[in-house]
Amino acid sequence: MALIVQKYGGTSVRSADRLKKVAERIAKFQARGDQIVVAVSAMSGETNRLITLAHEITSEPHPRELDVVVSTGEQVTIGLLCMALHELGIKAKSYTGGQVRILTDSAHTKARILDINNESIQKDLDEGTVVVVAGFQGVDEHGNITTLGRGGSDTTGVALAAALGADECQIYTDVDGVYTTDPRVVPKARKLDTITFEEMIELASQGSKVLQIRAVEFAGKYKVKLRVLSSFEEEGEGTLITVEEDSNMEKPVITGIAFSRDQAKITVVGVPDVPGIAYKLLGPIAAANIDVDMIVQNVGHHGATDFSFTVARSDLQRAVKLIEENEEIDQRVIETDDTMAKLSIVGVGMHSHPGVASKMFQTLAAENINIQMISTSEIKIAVVIEEKYLELGARVLHKAFDLDQT
Amino acid sequence: MALIVQKYGGTSVRSADRLKKVAERIAKFQARGDQIVVAVSAMSGETNRLITLAHEITSEPHPRELDVVVSTGEQVTIGLLCMALHELGIKAKSYTGGQVRILTDSAHTKARILDINNESIQKDLDEGTVVVVAGFQGVDEHGNITTLGRGGSDTTGVALAAALGADECQIYTDVDGVYTTDPRVVPKARKLDTITFEEMIELASQGSKVLQIRAVEFAGKYKVKLRVLSSFEEEGEGTLITVEEDSNMEKPVITGIAFSRDQAKITVVGVPDVPGIAYKLLGPIAAANIDVDMIVQNVGHHGATDFSFTVARSDLQRAVKLIEENEEIDQRVIETDDTMAKLSIVGVGMHSHPGVASKMFQTLAAENINIQMISTSEIKIAVVIEEKYLELGARVLHKAFDLDQT
Repeated sequence: MALIVQKYGGTSVRSADRLKKVAERIAKFQARGDQIVVAVSAMSGETNRLITLAHEITSEPHPRELDVVVSTGEQVTIGLLCMALHELGIKAKSYTGGQVRILTDSAHTKARILDINNESIQKDLDEGTVVVVAGFQGVDEHGNITTLGRGGSDTTGVALAAALGADECQIYTDVDGVYTTDPRVVPKARKLDTITFEEMIELASQGSKVLQIRAVEFAGKYKVKLRVLSSFEEEGEGTLITVEEDSNMEKPVITGIAFSRDQAKITVVGVPDVPGIAYKLLGPIAAANIDVDMIVQNVGHHGATDFSFTVARSDLQRAVKLIEENEEIDQRVIETDDTMAKLSIVGVGMHSHPGVASKMFQTLAAENINIQMISTSEIKIAVVIEEKYLELGARVLHKAFDLDQT
Repeated sequence: MALIVQKYGGTSVRSADRLKKVAERIAKFQARGDQIVVAVSAMSGETNRLITLAHEITSEPHPRELDVVVSTGEQVTIGLLCMALHELGIKAKSYTGGQVRILTDSAHTKARILDINNESIQKDLDEGTVVVVAGFQGVDEHGNITTLGRGGSDTTGVALAAALGADECQIYTDVDGVYTTDPRVVPKARKLDTITFEEMIELASQGSKVLQIRAVEFAGKYKVKLRVLSSFEEEGEGTLITVEEDSNMEKPVITGIAFSRDQAKITVVGVPDVPGIAYKLLGPIAAANIDVDMIVQNVGHHGATDFSFTVARSDLQRAVKLIEENEEIDQRVIETDDTMAKLSIVGVGMHSHPGVASKMFQTLAAENINIQMISTSEIKIAVVIEEKYLELGARVLHKAFDLDQT
């Protein structure tokens, strides 16, 4: 007997028929004696419908009230899934975030989980009841409804697994596991049987959308055994995200390739080459909650330098405006480019293989792909290139690092 | 400065535009210094959408889970209405039933309110905040979400008014007040400026749909000043439901005429005319939660009698089956008629005017309308007639009792 937390996303629960299929899958696990806790998202399209309703009222909905409205999406799913389980003769009980008491901070629309009360759930499990919990939501200490931000249902699943000491947290998605890269771009992409938390976090932060990065971080921190599976296929072991590096000697140096098209580059030309200039430039941008990804400061000439950094394209106009209004900087010519993309290779094996970076650069150069910016970590090398070369770059790197299907 | 509770039903909040209109009306009351608590229903159509979803899963949804699903309808409205109030620069805060703590019993889908905690709401009001509460819902002592049954938002409004000691509870509907009878059937129906609680309860229980009967009972019990108003018209005082009988000497004997088409008659022919036969016949029917309205037991001949009663048409088949399966009764011929309707005249003045009943019977007889069953109370006379005569009966009684517009 195992205690398993399963998380089903929006497409898995998009209709009554899909909910019945989910109930049948849960029934199979229960039949073999497992205790099951299920975290669910809103039915696909529902969250957007609710946000659209809010925007018909106001362009800037109050975050507290937006959470009140949007959190109903998951609440509908938990009730319906319990009904589907009852139809199969399975005892099931639903919990909203507030009913579990998933305690979060008060940062509406992007709250963080502080604590989960597992008492009621454990009691239900001990009585043979399947517990169905609304993902994505919690309550703060004052009882206000909060949401965890987009994709937060993954985090709910992992946090429940951690709080209950579950044997495994299974994330059911519309893909059958984590791939070496996006198969829609690189047809020879391979499904991975295992991947380490570190690699998964890097892939997620570099653009892979299979798992929400916060959920992976949470799972790594609390040592939750995490598995990505397809909710549409009956068979398959999916991809297991592990704490340990794979002991398989044949494991390739690079595990996966991630990319993100959502990049814009800003260059501020001729700023004074003095200490503190980076802070003066980027401080107001960080204060405006704009994520700055890569930063490059050219070697200065005659006391001036060029300063480049990347932001999400949707933040480009706001970032430029903040620089223009920045009274700390006198002289500035601002150049922008919103046709950039980021391409990253990730693998825990790379730190013991010194030739990885040069192989990457060489492979891209052989296709005349110009690298504009570079950023590295222990297990990742990311480059900014023109977006039009993105697919080509992903394919040639995938082949060069022996990731192609054989 | 007054403390006013306002309740807005589904058609009043059916769209973003309607919600903005509601916010504007609230703003007017606030501008004159009133403290406002608002109870709202789900946007019209939403509750049915949610029930349909549940029925796509199962024909018999578990009541606890149905409440989890259905209660989201009002939750969406409270968030959206607060956003609309914010747009007008008004401080507003939403509460689900659980957040207020509207404590109910655990009778899911038809729960009764036991207690309302007014602390948080009072604090918000004192800070100048408009409080928006989800109607129709509460929580039981274990924190399970409950609903009060259809039309329960009226009850929420009245219960909030009672708990807060409000000066007035205003029920906004799609009509501009309580009428002497349904204007769609009797074009000469008049709007009433006032009506007593007793009369309103009788009208509601006899078929008038303006107010939910439980809400009126609640208001009468706790002496809540209740007013029915149109949410679509700016002007008008609506109808005030009062504790006191109108002191106006000119007040007519009859206040209103109610009717209900949803009637079916069952006659059990030739049952033994012995004590206890009514209980033996009707006990199992009551146990099955079928409401029996009128009951007539004919004078017995030779130790046998005919026993007639009415039920809602939707309950007819179930009731007949219960009689057929009733082992306490040996001999039975069951006759049914589902083309019956009930027509009632209501008025607190009638108990001091002995001729009312005979005038009613005479008026109907003059049109050849046969009365099949009769039931009376202190302030009501109800008759069962063939449905095809219902409109005619309503019109002639309306005229005979001087209710027609002049």
